[in-house]
Order: sequence, then C-alpha cells, then structure tokens
Amino acid sequence: MLSTSQRTEIKKGAHKAVFEQEKLYQIIDESLVAHVAIQEAQGPVVIPMLAWRVGDFVYIHGANNSRLLRRLRQAVQTCLTFTLFDGWVLARSAFNHSAHYRSAVVFGQFEVIEDNLEKDQLLNHFVEQIAPGRTQDIRLSNPKELMATTVLRMPLHEASVKISNKDVGDDPADLDVPAWAGFIPYRTVVGPLKATAGLHASIPAPDYSAAYGERWEK
Amino acid sequence: MLSTSQRTEIKKGAHKAVFEQEKLYQIIDESLVAHVAIQEAQGPVVIPMLAWRVGDFVYIHGANNSRLLRRLRQAVQTCLTFTLFDGWVLARSAFNHSAHYRSAVVFGQFEVIEDNLEKDQLLNHFVEQIAPGRTQDIRLSNPKELMATTVLRMPLHEASVKISNKDVGDDPADLDVPAWAGFIPYRTVVGPLKATAGLHASIPAPDYSAAYGERWEK
Repeated sequence: MLSTSQRTEIKKGAHKAVFEQEKLYQIIDESLVAHVAIQEAQGPVVIPMLAWRVGDFVYIHGANNSRLLRRLRQAVQTCLTFTLFDGWVLARSAFNHSAHYRSAVVFGQFEVIEDNLEKDQLLNHFVEQIAPGRTQDIRLSNPKELMATTVLRMPLHEASVKISNKDVGDDPADLDVPAWAGFIPYRTVVGPLKATAGLHASIPAPDYSAAYGERWEK
Repeated sequence: MLSTSQRTEIKKGAHKAVFEQEKLYQIIDESLVAHVAIQEAQGPVVIPMLAWRVGDFVYIHGANNSRLLRRLRQAVQTCLTFTLFDGWVLARSAFNHSAHYRSAVVFGQFEVIEDNLEKDQLLNHFVEQIAPGRTQDIRLSNPKELMATTVLRMPLHEASVKISNKDVGDDPADLDVPAWAGFIPYRTVVGPLKATAGLHASIPAPDYSAAYGERWEK
C-alpha cells in the first residue's frame, strides 16, 4: 500500500484515489514517460523524460551535461507525473462530459547512481523492458559511454494514483435529452517493427511483442 | 514564429528545436493533455489537465474549489508541457537507443475568464473539438454550472517545441554488429464509439471521426 502524506492526499475526486502499489507500478511501466518538474528562479519547468522502474525505484537517465539532470543531481525536491489517457466520456449535458485516465504523481528526491557496473545493469534493464532479449544482440555500453551518462533513481514511497474509468454520469433530469451518450476510447498501438534502411538482409526481425501485450499490432 | 526567451532556449538537443507556431498548435491539439506545474512549499507539483487551444491561447478548466485552479487563478508563473510519444529507436549499441517524440513546453501566467457567456463559448468549443457537432444535441450549461466552473487561459507567446524523429544513429564502428536495428512505432487509435447502457435505441451513433483524422478506428 502507498503511504499518504499531506501532498499525496487527493482532495478533488477522492473517489478516484487508488492505494494499491501494483496500480502505481502498472501506470509507470505502461507509460515510460514521466513529466518531471524543477523549480527555476522564474517559476517551475516541466520536462518529459523517459523513466523506467526496477522494483520500488524509478530511474531516469541522460547526458551528464543536461541542465535538468544537473539540477536533479543536487537532490532537490521534485515531482514525476505519469499519465495514460484512455478516452472521452460524452454525457447528455456539456457539464457532465469527462475523461478516462490513469495517472501517478510521485514525489521525492533523486539519488545519483555512481557505480558504472550498476549504471550498465540499469540501462540494460531499460533496453530489455522495451525489447526483451535485445541486450544479447547489441553492443553494450563501454566505460566511456557509461561515464558520460547520468543515471538517477527515486524511491516510490510517496505517490498518489488516480484512475478515472466511470460510465457516463448524467443528471437524472438530463436522461431524456435526445443526445447520443457514451465513450470514445483511446488506445496505444505498438509496432510493427520497421527496419532501418541499412540493415543487413541476413538479420531477421526479432519478436518484442511480449513487452507490449494487447498493445502490440499483429 | 515563436519568440525565444532565456527559459525557452533549448540547450540540449538544439537540433530538435522547432520554431514554427503551427507545430506548437498541432502538438497541443493532438495531445489535449497538459502537465501543469505549481510550486508548493515542499517542492513542485505536476498535475495532468485537459487543455484545449482557441487561436493563440490555451485553456484549462475545472471546479472552482480545485486546489490547483485556485493556485493558478493567482497568476503565478507556471509551465504546461504537452508530449506525444511516437516510438523507440533501436540502435546497434545500447548507448544510441533513443525515442521519437513531439513536445511543447509553454510558460506564462493564467488569466481568469470571468464572463459566463465567454466561459460557455469556450467550453462548447472544447466539446466541439472532441466531438464535432455535439453542442447541437446536448443540454448546454446553465448559469449555475458556469458559475461553479473556473476557466483559465494562457497566451501561447513563450514556448519551446521539440520534435525528435531521426532514423537510427549508430556509430560507424557499430554498423557491423549483427543486431536488428530500426523503429518500434507507437500510435494512438481513437474509437469506435461505445454507447452507454441506458441509451435509447432510437438515437443513432454520431460521426465524430473528422476530429481525429488517421487516428480514427474505422
């Protein structure tokens, strides 16, 4: 179960709050894009970052000279938000229109992964998450590449999860309005693979579909 | 063309920077989800919000008693980030793996829309953007509903756009690595409509596909 702090307590739409750690993990694993905030002198800045999870930590990476990563290395308080948009709920009144979504808001401070071997394992874990089995085939990172890469991690201890998946919620007085009502679903489709132009003809297309479940385009 | 300020100048990956206003508009219109930041005493907070564009302004809305909207009403400096994830670029080395994405980062302060008629028009514009023609069918908002709703707008004057869509970029020394290389595309599929359980059988399904172009599932 996720702990509740003052900033993770969901005040609006409290009925949408979900306290299962498994739901948090699913949202992060399906999204893999975090919106990360830092506070600058002029105001907050939100940057999209690739983010992956191993156990109860979320990881981001980038070049050492990235402005964002240099700030996050200083263990400043930050917030990572993951959002999956699932569709529009069309009610019979304008006011009751809404959306289906799943979101996770994670608070904390990043820690630097200093050890090159640990960085290598974490980055390979990320590649495996995107493309299972791939680290058997590719040229793995060399010490120079690992030295040039910053990897940061944050514990998943302070987080709030919201899942909005309710059916149309019209006011009783509007049920006779002669308007269509229902749901416009959104879903993400992944694949099929597109080989790069210079690929040698003897190299077969791998099967990475296991990472994507129903999202994979057959 | 978008203006460039100190905070919109893209330092990392400057070759991905795009200065056409039309690209900014496309990213906002296709995304409709903004990650909005506010600065709290403990650190920044990032919340996903529905956001739509009319001309050179971006709008958000919510209940008057929303904590986020109450803060944003105070004309604090904020940042809205829109991100569309387009897929994974699989290189022959771990280090050269990357992603395709389109993102827009907008800075500024929100202004409150005070006038109920203007709020009504803006909210109806949002419904029309999701479901063309729909405001002809539904029960439009009444004064009580409009009074309970906060609508905020921000000018699209200070923004940075990044588009990453390059082919695999392997080091020349890695071109003989016998690994598959290429692209795993992601795309969003919208539809088909799902009627709510209580819908009267005499009401036909509308055609909202014009709002979604190639994303619409036929």
